[in-house]
Amino acid sequence: MNKFGLYTKFTTHEGRRDELAGMLLEAAQGMASVEGCDVYAINIPDEDPTGVWVTEVWNDSSAHQASLSLEEAKSLIQKARPLIAGIEQIKLTTLGGKGI
Amino acid sequence: MNKFGLYTKFTTHEGRRDELAGMLLEAAQGMASVEGCDVYAINIPDEDPTGVWVTEVWNDSSAHQASLSLEEAKSLIQKARPLIAGIEQIKLTTLGGKGI
Repeated sequence: MNKFGLYTKFTTHEGRRDELAGMLLEAAQGMASVEGCDVYAINIPDEDPTGVWVTEVWNDSSAHQASLSLEEAKSLIQKARPLIAGIEQIKLTTLGGKGI
Repeated sequence: MNKFGLYTKFTTHEGRRDELAGMLLEAAQGMASVEGCDVYAINIPDEDPTGVWVTEVWNDSSAHQASLSLEEAKSLIQKARPLIAGIEQIKLTTLGGKGI
């Protein structure tokens, strides 16, 4: 059964990467109770000191879309905005595999 | 506890994407019994008809390294090679989150 996948790369301003990663880890804890969210993992790339990658897998895109209107999501976006210099997203269809 | 993460993008020759995705899904089934492999997910990007992204999370890089010497991995690489036009990898430290 196909799912909705997403890789999001945040590029932070110099020296703010760990701060953003911490905020996103907090957000990941908030996902524990969010319906339809299978994976919300926070990663830092080995070769890019300003990057943070978030791996997401959702049951479908509407579950993902609904999560963006949660109060926690809105307040995270507001808190994190000053740290962020750029955002890139790779939209995926997750076909299957281990751990999802 | 930090883990070893990896995004691998395979670019296939024209028209061979679904064939490669099928091989990788088979490989993902083989990962069920592989120690230290938490996530091995197969994804196709919405905006790139020749791409396949594999999301991996391992306990540590040595668990990942050991998996490459398994017979199944070697035979997959051999079988898949004719389909593949390019490979890019983003090495990650997975800090935590939901589902991993």
